[in-house]
Amino acid sequence: MSTTIKAFGTEASDAPLKQLPIERRNLTPHDVQIEILYCGVCHSDLHQARGEWHNTVYPCVPGHEIVGRITAVGDHVTKFKVGDLAGVGCMVDSCRECESCKEGLEQYCENGIEGTYNSPDKYLGGVTYGGYSEKVVVDENYVLHVPENLDLAAVAPLLCAGITTYSPLRHWNVGPGKKVGIAGIGGLGHMGVKLAKAMGAHVVVITTSPSKIEDAKRLGADEVIISKDPEQMQKHRGTLDFLLDCISAEHDINTYISLVKRDGALALVGAPENPVPIAAFSLIMGRKSFAGSAIGGIAETQEMLDFCGQHNITSDIELINIDYINEAYERLLKGDVKYRFVIDMASLKNLII
Amino acid sequence: MSTTIKAFGTEASDAPLKQLPIERRNLTPHDVQIEILYCGVCHSDLHQARGEWHNTVYPCVPGHEIVGRITAVGDHVTKFKVGDLAGVGCMVDSCRECESCKEGLEQYCENGIEGTYNSPDKYLGGVTYGGYSEKVVVDENYVLHVPENLDLAAVAPLLCAGITTYSPLRHWNVGPGKKVGIAGIGGLGHMGVKLAKAMGAHVVVITTSPSKIEDAKRLGADEVIISKDPEQMQKHRGTLDFLLDCISAEHDINTYISLVKRDGALALVGAPENPVPIAAFSLIMGRKSFAGSAIGGIAETQEMLDFCGQHNITSDIELINIDYINEAYERLLKGDVKYRFVIDMASLKNLII
Repeated sequence: MSTTIKAFGTEASDAPLKQLPIERRNLTPHDVQIEILYCGVCHSDLHQARGEWHNTVYPCVPGHEIVGRITAVGDHVTKFKVGDLAGVGCMVDSCRECESCKEGLEQYCENGIEGTYNSPDKYLGGVTYGGYSEKVVVDENYVLHVPENLDLAAVAPLLCAGITTYSPLRHWNVGPGKKVGIAGIGGLGHMGVKLAKAMGAHVVVITTSPSKIEDAKRLGADEVIISKDPEQMQKHRGTLDFLLDCISAEHDINTYISLVKRDGALALVGAPENPVPIAAFSLIMGRKSFAGSAIGGIAETQEMLDFCGQHNITSDIELINIDYINEAYERLLKGDVKYRFVIDMASLKNLII
Repeated sequence: MSTTIKAFGTEASDAPLKQLPIERRNLTPHDVQIEILYCGVCHSDLHQARGEWHNTVYPCVPGHEIVGRITAVGDHVTKFKVGDLAGVGCMVDSCRECESCKEGLEQYCENGIEGTYNSPDKYLGGVTYGGYSEKVVVDENYVLHVPENLDLAAVAPLLCAGITTYSPLRHWNVGPGKKVGIAGIGGLGHMGVKLAKAMGAHVVVITTSPSKIEDAKRLGADEVIISKDPEQMQKHRGTLDFLLDCISAEHDINTYISLVKRDGALALVGAPENPVPIAAFSLIMGRKSFAGSAIGGIAETQEMLDFCGQHNITSDIELINIDYINEAYERLLKGDVKYRFVIDMASLKNLII
């Protein structure tokens, strides 16, 4: 009831990624099979591969920014046909019964989502394997349509970095007349800037490095604040309606909260490893909120992809071959990528062990 | 242009409170003079008197839960007449020009409120003096009408503890069909329970002490969770629409956030001294908010007093004489009061040095 395919993964937290075989289930009536063309490299891939969340089941095959083409459909599939472009993000299933699932907020499934990798696989046992592989088989309800007009490789990161920033921008009503801050210009932040700008907001980038000013403006920033300059930070106190915090490194969030207006919110999407110390008065004096947000639901992910199609938005990427992945991880750790590695999966197909 | 009156205050951070003379300005056209009948004892009074916020100007006369009767009005006063009951809370003025003031959210005045005590006094110089005194002179726009049907002494704490809990309950839409948690049963928390219940919500009290179960129910709690019992905490995970955190002692807020539903908020009103460590995933997994709230605006404070009049709500108090204040502070530190000390100001009038 399954087929062996080529994948790239790791067998231990301290082992490099290498080619290995995995099983993909044969299609059930609601499944589609996708030939993976491109897969983005998310920092979560690295955390999971290296066991940094202490829950990795090995072998581990990461990858949840998947773009490809439908190569087979199950008997009851109605949303897709062979030849369609398709995308898969961070989840491949959820309980479909809880309040969150019913409201289309599957990412907050009260019984836990089935992640694209390292989640219990209810069909084959073991855990799910991600997009660093030739093919993936997914229930059509968790598969997205991909606009035909965009550069496919650069679409892949939209499936995680794109929706992770799009969803909170929508939730906190970013749009015309609103001043929104995007803190941190990396895989997430650079998408946040592009999306917030396309939504019609006035976009203020907050970054530690003056070297990123020009790039921030190219991405769509109307203003740039250098966070290490207390004068600039002071000047912008209480001016932002909303601040999307895409910084995963440790940083003093209280100084970022000070940029937010009364009744404004700072939402975290890049999760720092350690608990964040929040001064009560940072929030009390202005009825501010410190919030968090996780990816987006299936319907909203589709909305985001359609929005990107309409506004010609993709990720800035560096396309790599699969056998470069271990070097890519090292560069990722140094923040040395503008702004997302994407694997050309043809390089896996062509690989000879 | 001023009159010397009797007050009770302190001349140094380590000195006990004692009787001392202060000046009150003569009435300007928009002022009312209030003979103070009762003044509540807020924990802030103690912090300020003892210089724990490192900004106290001495002598310091605390007190911002003031109830009394109008004894004189300025020429242009329209809201009050001699003989009216009146209340004064935490502020006696604000800039009246910023966005917050214009929206009736004077508590978030962008130029800083004029606090009832320890704020620069623009009339007499020095700082403002609070309600541990015979009389106070305040611009009528910052004075509240007090319902005639309530026990006046027990009304005093509404001016700070009441509005501090009422405002966030309203802001986060607590009402029928909503499940609201109140964490911590003290001066603030016990008001939170009464108010949330009167607003029609299902009220869940979270307390460390089993000894408070019965009292929590008497105050209006539908359910009580003992926070030290992991089983009870687990059972109520993700069930609250909103949680009002009235605990000023250090506590692990992440475990309280876990009680809140997706898209719910925990708002802090009892401010712990040190920054609060928040685990990013506490918020991200459920798009939750950790928020803060400060007292309320003048219009909302009036609304709260009217609401309390309609629902017969006052604070549970222990009435004391002014010369008991130093002992009261010691008991306050031990949480030994149910639930608010209120000073009978007749005891100051009758005091002979």
